[in-house]
Amino acid sequence: MRLCDYIAQFLVKRGVADIFMLTGSGAMYINDAIKVSGIRYYATRNEATAPMMAEAYARVRQSLGAVCVTAGPGATNAVPGLAEAFVDSAPVLILSGQVTSKHTTHYANIPGLRTFGTAEIDIVPIVQHLTKFAAVVDDPRKIRYLLEKALCLATTGRPGPVWLDVPLDIQQAMVDPAVLKGYTPPAAAFLKTDLTSAVDKVLRLLRKAKRPLIVAGQGVRQGKAIGELKILLERFDLPAVFSRLGQDLLPHTHPNVFGKAGVKGSRFCKDLMGQADCVIALGSRLAPQFAGLNFEGFAPQAKIVMVDIDKAELNKPGVALSLKVHADVGDFLKAFIPKLKKAAIPHWGPWLKTCQALKAAHPMVLPEQKRNPIDLYYFMDRLGRLSDRRHILITDAGSNYYVGGQVFRFEKGQREITSGTNAAMGTTIPLAIGACVAAPDSQVLAVTGDGSLELNIQELKTISHYKLNLKLFVINNGGYVSMHKWQDACFEGRRIDTEEATGTGTLNMRKVAAAFDLNYECIERYEDIDDKLKKIMSDPSPLFVEVMTDHNQQIFQAL
Amino acid sequence: MRLCDYIAQFLVKRGVADIFMLTGSGAMYINDAIKVSGIRYYATRNEATAPMMAEAYARVRQSLGAVCVTAGPGATNAVPGLAEAFVDSAPVLILSGQVTSKHTTHYANIPGLRTFGTAEIDIVPIVQHLTKFAAVVDDPRKIRYLLEKALCLATTGRPGPVWLDVPLDIQQAMVDPAVLKGYTPPAAAFLKTDLTSAVDKVLRLLRKAKRPLIVAGQGVRQGKAIGELKILLERFDLPAVFSRLGQDLLPHTHPNVFGKAGVKGSRFCKDLMGQADCVIALGSRLAPQFAGLNFEGFAPQAKIVMVDIDKAELNKPGVALSLKVHADVGDFLKAFIPKLKKAAIPHWGPWLKTCQALKAAHPMVLPEQKRNPIDLYYFMDRLGRLSDRRHILITDAGSNYYVGGQVFRFEKGQREITSGTNAAMGTTIPLAIGACVAAPDSQVLAVTGDGSLELNIQELKTISHYKLNLKLFVINNGGYVSMHKWQDACFEGRRIDTEEATGTGTLNMRKVAAAFDLNYECIERYEDIDDKLKKIMSDPSPLFVEVMTDHNQQIFQAL
Repeated sequence: MRLCDYIAQFLVKRGVADIFMLTGSGAMYINDAIKVSGIRYYATRNEATAPMMAEAYARVRQSLGAVCVTAGPGATNAVPGLAEAFVDSAPVLILSGQVTSKHTTHYANIPGLRTFGTAEIDIVPIVQHLTKFAAVVDDPRKIRYLLEKALCLATTGRPGPVWLDVPLDIQQAMVDPAVLKGYTPPAAAFLKTDLTSAVDKVLRLLRKAKRPLIVAGQGVRQGKAIGELKILLERFDLPAVFSRLGQDLLPHTHPNVFGKAGVKGSRFCKDLMGQADCVIALGSRLAPQFAGLNFEGFAPQAKIVMVDIDKAELNKPGVALSLKVHADVGDFLKAFIPKLKKAAIPHWGPWLKTCQALKAAHPMVLPEQKRNPIDLYYFMDRLGRLSDRRHILITDAGSNYYVGGQVFRFEKGQREITSGTNAAMGTTIPLAIGACVAAPDSQVLAVTGDGSLELNIQELKTISHYKLNLKLFVINNGGYVSMHKWQDACFEGRRIDTEEATGTGTLNMRKVAAAFDLNYECIERYEDIDDKLKKIMSDPSPLFVEVMTDHNQQIFQAL
Repeated sequence: MRLCDYIAQFLVKRGVADIFMLTGSGAMYINDAIKVSGIRYYATRNEATAPMMAEAYARVRQSLGAVCVTAGPGATNAVPGLAEAFVDSAPVLILSGQVTSKHTTHYANIPGLRTFGTAEIDIVPIVQHLTKFAAVVDDPRKIRYLLEKALCLATTGRPGPVWLDVPLDIQQAMVDPAVLKGYTPPAAAFLKTDLTSAVDKVLRLLRKAKRPLIVAGQGVRQGKAIGELKILLERFDLPAVFSRLGQDLLPHTHPNVFGKAGVKGSRFCKDLMGQADCVIALGSRLAPQFAGLNFEGFAPQAKIVMVDIDKAELNKPGVALSLKVHADVGDFLKAFIPKLKKAAIPHWGPWLKTCQALKAAHPMVLPEQKRNPIDLYYFMDRLGRLSDRRHILITDAGSNYYVGGQVFRFEKGQREITSGTNAAMGTTIPLAIGACVAAPDSQVLAVTGDGSLELNIQELKTISHYKLNLKLFVINNGGYVSMHKWQDACFEGRRIDTEEATGTGTLNMRKVAAAFDLNYECIERYEDIDDKLKKIMSDPSPLFVEVMTDHNQQIFQAL
């Protein structure tokens, strides 16, 4: 069979039902094999977004996302999306086509040669810094080994993207699957921490704690440990806060859950962090945007334990850790919970009540935010509250990202997919598309800003083309409001690229929707929000909704 | 003074009048310094295009192009444009903002750490493969040294992009310019070939040649040797063909010039190459798209001499070279021409006449191509012929790229800027914007396809916003026509992502123009082309022109 068909069938066997791609002659045989295989393909309109779509797909389904791009500019165009998948830990396989082997810079192997083939870039040295594994398929006989190795690395340990670059002659080479050699992961590939000692040490710390606090991140979901987290909190009266990619682990209305902490956290999180005397971080990397830019201010009274599958995260500078547990969060909790006997630990009920009182006293959305022009806090709160368990919430860089993080409550089991590490501009549309493809029975409520919208505006056509059940809310706040805020604050009001008259935010959104074949709706007054949102959510067709909000939106900063 | 102000003033002193950027808090001090310095800034709507704009700017002005992006996604977004500037040899400086040093992955220096700071990516290891020099400014005292080194490398030898990553604490550090150390390039940085022996060897080969042929590429312009090329051709009756980035060196109506050769070259170039017995390549890298995919077919009777400033290009596999001259084309021609005495060389007049007869017998545009639906050859020919010396011509990947390369004649001294090495989709709009900024007295005639348009469609707003004298011609051929041609040819008509009903090419262009505030014009019949083009060219305001062409356009393939 053709090697390209072997790849496609391998993906089918591994459960890949959908792929995000942009065709190109450098990947022509893989393109054809995808068509032949029956894998559903989604054509992006710039390769940059394909890995973002696959990332959202992977995070929604907790399985592999797949991408195919062509050689040269197809591959370099995909780098922005690749970076997102890498930092946000999504298992994504990217297949790039490549010119025929003898025309590759890789094969020519001349120091300093910029490029040899036609529309060819030696992509592996570039993407190796943004992947767990990247290789050129330089011999057809290696294809099974390389695919198995790539998929193993993408999906085990801390997930992440992997990349295989496949020259045209290799794509069309004939292979006999019966004689292809496979990949056997070394024992070290699977993290098998001896947890006995680690569990004992955490227990010892926790037993001394009067005001313990759990910080939960995406690692809890990736460790398939949401159930264990719930048991831990409920059985032992433990309070928990979330970092951004852990926001949707449990409803924020849960009595043990205290929403988002961090620099742009809740109104009460600083108080809560300040009082905690023991923090256990579960699959949350305690990044500067969470722990605070100076780290010392983070839970200053607390001993801090970090449980993480990624050793590098444990060893990095930043928050001073009392204890590092290098383990999968699921493995850790499964070993830890049975050892935690109620009798042998302090009674944390009063501390939990303190936390609950703090939460009750400091609602995120204040009565005066129900006003015109629309306050973003009020709008995002209504959006979150009116959504239900079939919804996936998505936000984009800037005001809506911060506010969504502060007000969404996930009380009906909604999911959230967002650019958690980078808070990168322009990610909402591709993430929303990937989420829609991953969960066709869901409805995606995707929020973006009038600045962020522009970066990947070409994919609006992808939404209308595939008739996705996707509602895109474009927050019109006059453009780049987050940016002009720091310009005004730090530079005596000298604005660059954010002047209302000359900066962004000047697109006519109704015309933009029309250009990309999307129906358009507008929300201008707070009184209309509920009725309009209910109507919008009752319809499965794609929709572009412009939300006119205060141009001077204030964002609450916790730390 | 602030280090950021030192950077901005350094750029001003080096003649940088314009910069392409997208603001961001990671580059906030540099952004502010640019504002303060008076450098004109052009705000892109995705960082991907900023280096492409700077590339066009650099190539039009033959001087440095400058870019500023923010940290993390701002930097990775710029990679697609960076790759273009690298392979097409444009001197471009990219400044990326970065989070404060102690939050950088670079400073943390933990193996395997994906990222440390907020919206931070360790960008230097990624871009070092696409630049001549890339560095983190890790000490304010190094700023002068690093800027001088970066600019020296960008602009000497074979030009190319360079990248400096500047953390926030460094951006705002105070420096005393009087005590900053500079960069002294090592003697080896400047290629000083002893040309005596090389010139003798080339002379010896050329004296034996009966049918010599010059192949001229972008290296002739970069070597400031267009005048010398003209003398060489005219004084010695030598014929010349061009590779893509050399197309606009001389008018194709010149009796010694025979247009574009290569795979998608002229109808007579194969004949001409086949007869040549000596080829001298001047600043042209003889890439597969030029020399043919199998190389052996390239000028099979000829001894081949290659003069190039980039040693790697001379040493790469591909065309079998009889002689390699590692030199700047300008230096070589200045040494070579005085040694070439008419008396001592064969009389090449008859061979030149043979070439002229071939050219006359095989016009690129045939009478039957004057028809409806519009044939792209006819349209591009009219566009080229009606343009004049104030025009810069730009084409995008696909049909219009190939056809423009075959029919533009540059008889009035027009310039061409295009993605020469990659023929990358989506480059027309950013290249056109960069060219407009570089040459405000010019008018840019930019052609793109209905497929390529989408990749950087967000920059349409940049065109209208800055009111550029830019006419964008969007060739409507039903979308991705180049792609479905190979799908039909190689895969029994199995089309993926190019089906007329479901693929691209389905945007309503009139609405697209409206969405991005551009006036719209449409050309539907060949009879209207001349009148409409004349009217369009007489107006300096930006315009979006849809050109309805044959959905089954045939492209002539020479090799």
